[in-house]
Amino acid sequence: MSAAFASTPFAMRAALEAAERAAARGEVPVGAALVGPDRRLLAVDGNRVEEHRDPTAHAEMLVVRAAAQRLGRPRLTDCDLYVTLEPCPMCAHALCLARVRRLYYGAEDPKGGGVDHGPRVLNSPSCHHRVEVYGLIAEEAAAALLRDFFRARR
Amino acid sequence: MSAAFASTPFAMRAALEAAERAAARGEVPVGAALVGPDRRLLAVDGNRVEEHRDPTAHAEMLVVRAAAQRLGRPRLTDCDLYVTLEPCPMCAHALCLARVRRLYYGAEDPKGGGVDHGPRVLNSPSCHHRVEVYGLIAEEAAAALLRDFFRARR
Repeated sequence: MSAAFASTPFAMRAALEAAERAAARGEVPVGAALVGPDRRLLAVDGNRVEEHRDPTAHAEMLVVRAAAQRLGRPRLTDCDLYVTLEPCPMCAHALCLARVRRLYYGAEDPKGGGVDHGPRVLNSPSCHHRVEVYGLIAEEAAAALLRDFFRARR
Repeated sequence: MSAAFASTPFAMRAALEAAERAAARGEVPVGAALVGPDRRLLAVDGNRVEEHRDPTAHAEMLVVRAAAQRLGRPRLTDCDLYVTLEPCPMCAHALCLARVRRLYYGAEDPKGGGVDHGPRVLNSPSCHHRVEVYGLIAEEAAAALLRDFFRARR
């Protein structure tokens, strides 16, 4: 982990740890954490596409679904998502549908991202809820996890 | 159902019937069917957002996940999706991630769609797989289901 890790928000630390566990399972190391209106962690998970044999089992989707289950409602009003990588278009629009308040992400994803790259779905007229976006939180630690994972596979 | 219903492809008929069942459950009436490489139905389901208390439980997501489970792999190569409404950006990108071959949809969704409206995510550089798209299949029947549902709620 980078030297900046100690000053990382607790929910992003939880997301980074979930990403490390994903890497240990052989999954692309992305982790996410959902924080409820009372600032407690509602759900933490990492990518499980291969384990679940589910193309939609990105970390963000898993924590959105788990948090909605836990709250007993399909809308995550006043909840914030922390994720180690810029969400893809699928996950970004799921945050819109779930009415998530704020998105904090780590590393940028110029090739696959859908928030500040590609279709920028949260700025599209198809997104009927405004999600506040804060990028590059603990970016170095998040990017290092991905770099190490792909380097080891080459 | 419209007079054109008899000539509707069998998978779209299955999707329309799933949409009708969704309406009967009080869900927005959208249905989807996934057809495997052998042209058999792999999965059929309707929207279950309220029932599952899951903002991601759109018909398309449910059949993509069920089909991947059934095939035992996260990629739906040579599979085709039929859905009664133009997919939203979340579902559209899920089809890209799942490597679905063809998308056939019913009614257009100018306000919430993400394929031929809004962010058009399947034409974005973030989508690294080409999904063939065929819109307006059994459009009238699909649109009538939605119209009747929202009229009854007013």
